[in-house]
Amino acid sequence: MRAHVPGAQGAALQAADASSQPGPEESKPEAACHAFGCSIFPSSMAPAAERAGATLQREEWGDITYPVLFIQLNQLFSTPAGLEWRETARWIKFEEKVEDGGERWSAPHVPALPLHSLFQLRTCLQKGTVLLDLDAPNFKEIIDKALSRQPEEAELQPELRERLAALLLCQPRHQPTKSLLQLLVELGLSPCRGKAKSWSEPGAQLSKTPLKEQLRNRFKKKVPPGAEAAHIAVGEVEFLEKPFTAFIRLRQGVALGSLSEVALPSRFLFILLGPRAKAKAYHEVGRAMATLLTDEVFQRVAWQAEQREDLIAGMEAFLDELTVLPPGKWDPSARIPPPSCLPSPHRRTTVHQPDGQSHGNGDIAAAGDRAGQRRAHSREELERTGRLFGGLLQDIRRKARWYGSDFSDGLHPQCLSAVLYIYLATVTNAITFGGMLGDATANMQGVLESFLGTAFAGFVFCLFSGQPLTILSSTGPVLVFERLLFSFSQDYGLDYLEFRLWIGLWVAFFGVVLVATEASHLVRYFTRFTEEGFCALISLIFIYDSLKKMLSLADTFPINWQYRLDNVTSYSCICNLSSPGHSSTGNDTPLPSALGLGGSRVSVHNLSLLPPLSSQPPAALAMLSRTQCLDQGGYLLGTSCQYVPDVTLFSFLLFGGTFLSCTVLKRFRSSRYFPVGVRKVVSDFAIILAILASCAVDAALGLETPKLLVPSELKPTNPARGWIIFPFGANPWWVCLVSTVPAVLVTILIFMDQQITAVILNRREYKLQKGAGFHLDLLCVSLLMVVTSVTGLPWYVSATVISLAHMESLRKESTTSAPGEHPKFLGIREQRLTGLAVFVLTGVSVFMAPVLKHIPMPVLYGVFLYMGVAALNSIQLTDRVRLLLMPAKHQPDLAYLRHVPLRRVHLFTIIQLLCLALLWVLKSTVAAIIFPVMLLALVGIRKGLERIFSLHDLSWLDSLLPETARKEADGKQSREQEESNSEEVGDVLDAAFSGLMPRRGPEINVSVN
Amino acid sequence: MRAHVPGAQGAALQAADASSQPGPEESKPEAACHAFGCSIFPSSMAPAAERAGATLQREEWGDITYPVLFIQLNQLFSTPAGLEWRETARWIKFEEKVEDGGERWSAPHVPALPLHSLFQLRTCLQKGTVLLDLDAPNFKEIIDKALSRQPEEAELQPELRERLAALLLCQPRHQPTKSLLQLLVELGLSPCRGKAKSWSEPGAQLSKTPLKEQLRNRFKKKVPPGAEAAHIAVGEVEFLEKPFTAFIRLRQGVALGSLSEVALPSRFLFILLGPRAKAKAYHEVGRAMATLLTDEVFQRVAWQAEQREDLIAGMEAFLDELTVLPPGKWDPSARIPPPSCLPSPHRRTTVHQPDGQSHGNGDIAAAGDRAGQRRAHSREELERTGRLFGGLLQDIRRKARWYGSDFSDGLHPQCLSAVLYIYLATVTNAITFGGMLGDATANMQGVLESFLGTAFAGFVFCLFSGQPLTILSSTGPVLVFERLLFSFSQDYGLDYLEFRLWIGLWVAFFGVVLVATEASHLVRYFTRFTEEGFCALISLIFIYDSLKKMLSLADTFPINWQYRLDNVTSYSCICNLSSPGHSSTGNDTPLPSALGLGGSRVSVHNLSLLPPLSSQPPAALAMLSRTQCLDQGGYLLGTSCQYVPDVTLFSFLLFGGTFLSCTVLKRFRSSRYFPVGVRKVVSDFAIILAILASCAVDAALGLETPKLLVPSELKPTNPARGWIIFPFGANPWWVCLVSTVPAVLVTILIFMDQQITAVILNRREYKLQKGAGFHLDLLCVSLLMVVTSVTGLPWYVSATVISLAHMESLRKESTTSAPGEHPKFLGIREQRLTGLAVFVLTGVSVFMAPVLKHIPMPVLYGVFLYMGVAALNSIQLTDRVRLLLMPAKHQPDLAYLRHVPLRRVHLFTIIQLLCLALLWVLKSTVAAIIFPVMLLALVGIRKGLERIFSLHDLSWLDSLLPETARKEADGKQSREQEESNSEEVGDVLDAAFSGLMPRRGPEINVSVN
Repeated sequence: MRAHVPGAQGAALQAADASSQPGPEESKPEAACHAFGCSIFPSSMAPAAERAGATLQREEWGDITYPVLFIQLNQLFSTPAGLEWRETARWIKFEEKVEDGGERWSAPHVPALPLHSLFQLRTCLQKGTVLLDLDAPNFKEIIDKALSRQPEEAELQPELRERLAALLLCQPRHQPTKSLLQLLVELGLSPCRGKAKSWSEPGAQLSKTPLKEQLRNRFKKKVPPGAEAAHIAVGEVEFLEKPFTAFIRLRQGVALGSLSEVALPSRFLFILLGPRAKAKAYHEVGRAMATLLTDEVFQRVAWQAEQREDLIAGMEAFLDELTVLPPGKWDPSARIPPPSCLPSPHRRTTVHQPDGQSHGNGDIAAAGDRAGQRRAHSREELERTGRLFGGLLQDIRRKARWYGSDFSDGLHPQCLSAVLYIYLATVTNAITFGGMLGDATANMQGVLESFLGTAFAGFVFCLFSGQPLTILSSTGPVLVFERLLFSFSQDYGLDYLEFRLWIGLWVAFFGVVLVATEASHLVRYFTRFTEEGFCALISLIFIYDSLKKMLSLADTFPINWQYRLDNVTSYSCICNLSSPGHSSTGNDTPLPSALGLGGSRVSVHNLSLLPPLSSQPPAALAMLSRTQCLDQGGYLLGTSCQYVPDVTLFSFLLFGGTFLSCTVLKRFRSSRYFPVGVRKVVSDFAIILAILASCAVDAALGLETPKLLVPSELKPTNPARGWIIFPFGANPWWVCLVSTVPAVLVTILIFMDQQITAVILNRREYKLQKGAGFHLDLLCVSLLMVVTSVTGLPWYVSATVISLAHMESLRKESTTSAPGEHPKFLGIREQRLTGLAVFVLTGVSVFMAPVLKHIPMPVLYGVFLYMGVAALNSIQLTDRVRLLLMPAKHQPDLAYLRHVPLRRVHLFTIIQLLCLALLWVLKSTVAAIIFPVMLLALVGIRKGLERIFSLHDLSWLDSLLPETARKEADGKQSREQEESNSEEVGDVLDAAFSGLMPRRGPEINVSVN
Repeated sequence: MRAHVPGAQGAALQAADASSQPGPEESKPEAACHAFGCSIFPSSMAPAAERAGATLQREEWGDITYPVLFIQLNQLFSTPAGLEWRETARWIKFEEKVEDGGERWSAPHVPALPLHSLFQLRTCLQKGTVLLDLDAPNFKEIIDKALSRQPEEAELQPELRERLAALLLCQPRHQPTKSLLQLLVELGLSPCRGKAKSWSEPGAQLSKTPLKEQLRNRFKKKVPPGAEAAHIAVGEVEFLEKPFTAFIRLRQGVALGSLSEVALPSRFLFILLGPRAKAKAYHEVGRAMATLLTDEVFQRVAWQAEQREDLIAGMEAFLDELTVLPPGKWDPSARIPPPSCLPSPHRRTTVHQPDGQSHGNGDIAAAGDRAGQRRAHSREELERTGRLFGGLLQDIRRKARWYGSDFSDGLHPQCLSAVLYIYLATVTNAITFGGMLGDATANMQGVLESFLGTAFAGFVFCLFSGQPLTILSSTGPVLVFERLLFSFSQDYGLDYLEFRLWIGLWVAFFGVVLVATEASHLVRYFTRFTEEGFCALISLIFIYDSLKKMLSLADTFPINWQYRLDNVTSYSCICNLSSPGHSSTGNDTPLPSALGLGGSRVSVHNLSLLPPLSSQPPAALAMLSRTQCLDQGGYLLGTSCQYVPDVTLFSFLLFGGTFLSCTVLKRFRSSRYFPVGVRKVVSDFAIILAILASCAVDAALGLETPKLLVPSELKPTNPARGWIIFPFGANPWWVCLVSTVPAVLVTILIFMDQQITAVILNRREYKLQKGAGFHLDLLCVSLLMVVTSVTGLPWYVSATVISLAHMESLRKESTTSAPGEHPKFLGIREQRLTGLAVFVLTGVSVFMAPVLKHIPMPVLYGVFLYMGVAALNSIQLTDRVRLLLMPAKHQPDLAYLRHVPLRRVHLFTIIQLLCLALLWVLKSTVAAIIFPVMLLALVGIRKGLERIFSLHDLSWLDSLLPETARKEADGKQSREQEESNSEEVGDVLDAAFSGLMPRRGPEINVSVN
C-alpha cells in the first residue's frame, strides 16, 4: 500500500528512520552519517518499511473492507479469592477505560500512550509467539496451540504451560454498560457498602455460550453489525520467570463464549503474561497493542500479514506517523476528547505521504483530488447547453428520475416533526407578512390572501419544482416593492390590482425568457460575499422590525409613567355625550385599537389638563363602555382615558421570555443533561414549546394583550375587490405597456431573491443526491406569478431561512457510531411530502381561527427576534465582525486566520459592512425602487474586490468567481487544495453546530420599510 | 539529578530503554532477550541515562535557578530579492507560530512534534558541531568559531564557509507583536494590496545595536526580567551538499544586536543548514530543538553539559517521557491549547519516576510528600496546647508579628476596587437585613441600628481579629433566633431588649469559656459535608427570599388582570368622607405603602362589586389625594382603588434585568472580546454596573417603583427605646439566670456560624501567609456580643459569602507569565485596611440617604438572586446534583468520578440533599429553636457516613475526620496521595474559575423564616 503510491518512498524512508536509526548509531557511530543523510535527503529504502509497503501492495486500498474491530483489554488482578481477569478498557475507534474504583466507563478519549510502551510492544512482537491464520474451534484449543508453538528460546516447562492454560481459561469480569435507570435501581438495592453483585466467582471457568449479561449489554448498540472482536490479555504471574507473549490471528472468526463483553466472533488475540514488573508496565503494553489494532492502516497489515516481519513493518509505519507531546508541557493523565474531524486513512496513505512531513503542527494536509471531484459534481446543473430551454430540459430530465422516490422517501417519522416545525414557521410568516401587506395596500392583500396564496403557491411549487425542499414565502424586498406600487397607483389614480396584474404578467414573461436563455447559470457569480450581504440584510430587517413592533405597542397601549399612587383619586375616564362639538378642538389622541388591522380608528380628546369631574357628567351615561360611548357619538373625558395599564410591560415580559426560552431550549441540545433523545426532541420543538409556554402564561394571567387576528370567513379582506382581477377596465389601455418598466425591476428582484436562496440550498455541504433545478425553479416561480397576479394574491419566491430550517430538520445522520466518534452527516431526506403537508396544513389553517387567536402578538415578535438573531449568528460575516472586537491572541483558530493577514480580513469585513449599510439606507429611503438593482450591484462590487485582494486571500474569505477560478486552476493547484481545506474546516464547524441549531433559524419576512 | 533521588534507577532504566532498545535488536537479535527483560523487570542501567543522571547529580534540584529562555526560530526563505531569514515561531513555555500568510502570531499551544523530527535532531546533535561555553563578543565571531571547529568528517570548504557566514549574518525579519490599534492604523494606511512595510531589506547585514522595532515590541512585557535568548536558525541552502549543524552554548550571555525579536542577551544557538530536502523537514527539526530547550529538565542538562554526550543523554531522558498520540485518532494539525495545570518539573524528576510507567493515560501521579507537608502546615493553628487560653496566646503571638504589615500591605490600588465592591455588598446586606430585623422585632432593631452595628462591629473586628479578611454581618440563623425570641418575649410579657441583653452576656461568657478551653480545635471535624450543607442552606434562603420578596410586591401593588380596555370608563376611585362607619364592614385591603418600613398601614374598602359612581360623591372631596383623604378619616371608593398599574410588572423587568446583567457582566471576564484589562474591570464592577444601569433606567422612566428607605436621622428606629439597655428594671430578677438556656443555643449557633466560615476562609488553597486565628476571632465575636447587647444593636458573626468575595477581590497573581501559561495565584493581599475602610464607609452611609434612596428595591432583589445563584453554583454539591441528571457518558471528567463508583457518588449526594431538606423544614417550622443543634448534628451525620462509605470513597467525596485520617495514615499512604491529587484537581478548577467569578458571590443574609 505504502509503496504503490507515488512518493511512498519518502514515507517508507521515514519509517526506516524511526526504526533503524535510534539504536545503531550508538553501537556503530560510523554508520550514522548515512542515517543522517537519509533523514534529510531521500535515499535508499529501509527493509522494514519496504516490507510494510509490500504487505499492503497486494491489493488496492478500499477494495476489501474488513470488519470493524471491537478490542477488549482484560487484565489480571489478584483478589483475596485468587487471580481474576477483569476488563479494564475497550476500543472501537477511541479508548474507553474502566475507572479505577469507579465501576464505570470513562468518556471515550484519544488513546495517548507512553512512547516507551510502544517500544516494549515491538519487542514482544519480535520475540514472542506469532500465529497467523490459526484454525481452532474454541478458546481452549487456541491456548493449547499458542503454548505449544513457542519459539525455542522462550519455551516453557510443561507444568507451567498447564498452569498458564488454566489461568487463561478463567472467566473474566466484564464491565457492562448500564443505563442511568439501572444504576439508580442498583443504588436502591444495595445502599450499604459492598460491591455490585459480582459477575461470576473468581476462578470460574470460561463459559462456552454467551452469558445473559453479555446479551443484555447496552453497548451492543454501538458495535456495528459484522464486527469482530480482538482480545488482549495482560498480567503479572508469579510463577513465570520470563514473559510469555503471543499474537494470534484466527483464520475464521470464532465465537469464544463469554470471553468478551459483547458476544462477537473473535479474530485477534494478544496475550502477555510475565513475572512481577513495575506497576502498570503490562497494562501499558496492552493498551499499546489495542491502540495499534484500532489504527486503520495497521488493521490492514494485521489482516494481510503472512509472517512476523509483516507485523513489525506495519508497526514501524505506525510509529512513524506518531505525534508526540513533550513532557512538562502536557499532563499525561489528561484525557483528550475525540476530535470532531480526522484525517481519513485514505488521506494518510495516499495524499498525506508524498510531502512526508506534513503532519507537523499547524499545517493542514492537502486533498486536491477530492476538492476537484466535488466541484465538478456540484456545478453540473449550471453548465450552459447553449440551446433554448436546454437547461430546463436537463433539469426536468434530472428530476424526473427521482419523482417516485420523492414521495416514497418522505415516509419517515422524522418528516412528521419537520412538518410540524415548518408549518408553525410558515403560518407565523403568513400571518405577519399578511398583516404587513394589508397595512401597505389598504387591505387589498390581507391576512386571508396571504394564507391562501402561501398555501396554493407553496403546494404547487413543492409538486413541480426542481428543489422541493424550498419553502416559498413573501419576502421583504417584494413587500417594499408592493408598498411603493400601491402609493404610486393612488397618486396617479390607477387601479392598483389591475396595474399589478400587468406587471405580474410581464415579470412572468421575462422569467420565462430568463429560463429559455439559461440565465440561471449566472448564479455562479453569487459568492459568499453576495449571499452574506443578502442574508445579513434580511436578518437585520427581522431584528429591527420585531423591536420596532414592540416599541409601537407602547404607543398603542401607552403607559402613564407619571402615575402617582397617592393621586389614585385623580385618575378617571368618563363618557361625555353632551358636547360633541368638542371633537373639532384638535388635540386628538388615537385610542388603542386592538391591532389596527381592519379596526376603525377612534380618537378622543386628551383632557388631562382639565380638572377631573369638573362638570357633572350625565349619570346615566357613565355606564356606557368605550365602544358604546363612541358609537353614540360621545367622547371620552378624563386623565386615565389615554393610558392602558400593564399591557405594554406585560407584552415586553412575554417578548423577552419567548426570546430567552427559544434560545435556551434550542441550546438544550448541546447540554449535558438527560439522554440525547430527550434533548433532541426539546431542541427540535424549541420554538413551539416556547410559544406554547408563553401562551399558557398569558392565558393564565388573563390580561388583555394584543392577540393574533385570523380571518374567519373566506372572502377577500377588502370588500372592494373580487377573487379575479380583470386585465382591462379600470386603467387606460397603455398601462399594460408601461408596466414593462416596473416589471424589469421586479424581475431583477425576484431573480436575485430566488436564485441566492437556491444557491444556498444547493450547497455542496448538504450532500444532496437528487441535484438542483435552478431553471425549473425559476419557471415555477414565474408561472405562479401569473396565477397570483390574476387572483390578486401576494407574489412568492423562495425564503432562505425557512427553507434552510426545513433542510436542517430533515438531516440524516449515521446512527451507530463508535463511542467518541461523531455521527456522520449522510445527507438530507430529499422528498416532496413534507412541503406538501406543510402547505396543505397552511390552507386548512384558514379555519383554525379559534385556536390561533389565543396567540399574543408579543410572543410572535419574540420568535421573530430569535429567528433574526439566529440567522445573523449563522453567517461568517458575523464571526468576522466579532474578530474586529477581539485582541488577536483571543481569536479562535479559524482556517482563514491561519492563512490571510488579519488586516486583510478586517478590510474585507469592513467593505462588507459598508455594502450592507448602503443597502439598508437604500431600502429605507425613496430610492428603494432601485433596491433590486443594488442587489445586483453586489456582484459587481465582489468583482471589484479582486483589485484589492489577492486571489489567495479571496479563496479563503470568499469563493472565487468562475473565470478567475479557472485562471487560477491553470496556474497552480494550491488554491483548490486550500479551498477544499477551508471547506473541510467549514464542515467541521457545521458538524459542531448542526446539533445546536439550524444554520439559519426559520425566516419570517417582515416589513422592509 | 535523575540518579540522586531514590527510584531514579527506574527512571534511568526507562531512558535506557527508549534509547538503546529500538535499534540493537534489529542488528543483533540475540541481544534482544536481554533488552526485553529490561523493559519488564528492572536490571542494569544504560549508559546514556546514567550520564544524564550524572550530569544532573552535580547539584541539588532547585539550588540554582537558571534564567528563563526565550527561544526564537528563524527560517531561511527564498524571496525574489534573495534569501531572507524570517522568524517563524517562538517559545517561552508554549509555542507561538507565525501564521502562514497571516503576518500574525498564533495562539500559544502545546508544541506537538512528529516523532521523526526528534530522531533527526538527535542525529544532528550526535554528528554536528557542539561548542559548549564558547567565548565570543559578537555574532560574527561566534559564527566564525562554529564554522572552524567542525568535526573532521563534516568539514566544509573555505569558500563555502564564507558564504555560510555571510548568510548567517543577514538581518532576520521579525514578527513583532502588535496591538489591535496598531493593526487598525496599518489597515487605514495601506488599504490596497501590498504587504506591510518590510522590516528591512532582504540581505541587509545584522545590526549590532537593537533596532527601534525590537525595543518597541510589545512582547517584551511577556518576557520575565533576566531572561536570555536561544536562537535557532534552520534552512535549505542550495550550495551545500551535506548539512551543517551546530549547537553552541556561550559562556556569557551576549547581546547579539538585532538577531532576536526582543533585545535579550543570547545564550544558546542552534544552526541547521543543509541541501534541499523534503518540505518542512528543517522546520520540524528546528521546532524539535526549540521544544527540547523549553523543557525544564533538558534546560538544566543544557546548562550543565560538559560534552556532547551529556546533551544526548538529556535528550534521551526527554524522549523517554514523551506522550504519543496515534495517527488516525488525532489530527496532527490541530493545536492543543495549553493545559491549565501541569506536572511540575520537581514531580517529574522525583516522585514521578519511582513508579516509572505512571505517565499512562488516565492515571494521576501521586505526590504524597507534598500533601503531607501542606497538611502539617495548614492545621498548625488548631493544635491543642492543653493550657487555658493557650490557643489564644498562640494566635496573638502569631498575628502580632504581622500587625505592622497588615497596614502597609494594604497600600495597593487593587485594594481600592475591593473596598468599593465589598462596601456595596455590605451596605445592601445591612439594608436588607435591617429591614428584616425591623419586621421581626417591631423595629426594636431597624435599618439604622443595622448600619451602626455593622459599621462598629466590623471595624472593631477588622482591627483586632485573627483573620481580618473576614467581614462580619448579621446572618440568617441569627435572624431566625431573634424572631423567635421577640415573639417569646411578647407572649410572656418580658422586655425583649433586656432579656436579649442577658442572653448576649451569657453567650459572651460561654464564648470566652470556649476560647479558654480551645474548643475551636473541634473545627477539624467540619468537613466538606458540613460546610456544603451550611453553604447550600444559606444560598437557598437567599434565592427563596429574593423571589418571595418579588412576589410580595404583587400583593403590595396589585395588578388588575381583568382590566378591559373597552371598560375604561368603569374604572375610578374617589374619596368618600360621608360614611366613615363603613370602615367596620370588613373586606379590608391593605393599600400599598411605599415599603412597609415605618410607613403606617392603611386600609380601604374593596367596593369593586358596587356599581361605580352609583352614589353622588361630594364634589369637593374628589380633589383630595389618597393621603389627605385618609387623614381626614375618609375612605376610598371605586373599582380602581385597590390596583396599581405597571409598578409590579416594571419591578419584575428591573429584577430580571438586574439579575441577567449581573450574570452577563460577571461572565464578560472570560469572553474573547476586548483586551483583558477592560474585561477585568467590567467583571470586577459587574454588580455595581448592573445596579447603576437599572437605577438609570428606572429614573429615566420615572415610574413610582418601591425605593430603598435609608434612615436620615441618628435616633433609634423605635422611639420607645434608647441607645443603652439597662440590665434590670423591666423584667423579674430571675430572668438573668433563665437566660442561660437560650444562651446555650445561641452559643452553638454562633460557634457553628463563625467557625464554619473561618474554616472556609482559611483553606489551604488560598495560600494565606499570615496564618489563621480561630481562637482570637471567637474572642472578638464574643466581646462584640457584649457591646451590641448593651446598645441593642444586632449580633454579628462572620458572613461566609461576602468574606469570600472580599478575599477573591484581593487575589495576587503573577503578572508576567509566558504566553499560554496561566497567571500563577500568589496568595491573598492579607491586610486590615480594606476591611476598615469598608466599615468606615458603611458608618458614613448613614448620611448618604439622598443618594441611596434612588435605588429601587427590585434591583437589590435581583442582586440578591444573583448572589444566591452564584453561591449555590460554587459548591461541589451542586455539581453532584447535576450529575444525577446526566447520562454517565456526558459527565465531566472529574477526579472523584474516576475513583468512586457512580452509585456511591449519587448516594452521597442524596444523603446530603436529605440533610439539607431536613434543615430547611426545621428552620421553617416551630422547631426552629433547635436549629443550631441540628447544625451541630451535621457533624454527627458525617461521622455516621463512615458506616456507609469506605474511607477511600470519603477521602474523594469529602475530607476525612482527624482520627480516621490518622488511622488511615498509619495503614497506607494511598489516601493522602489521592487526596492531594483531588486537591490539585480542585486547584485546577479554582484556577479555571477564578477568572470567572468569585467562588461564592458576596452574601447578603436575608430572612430565614
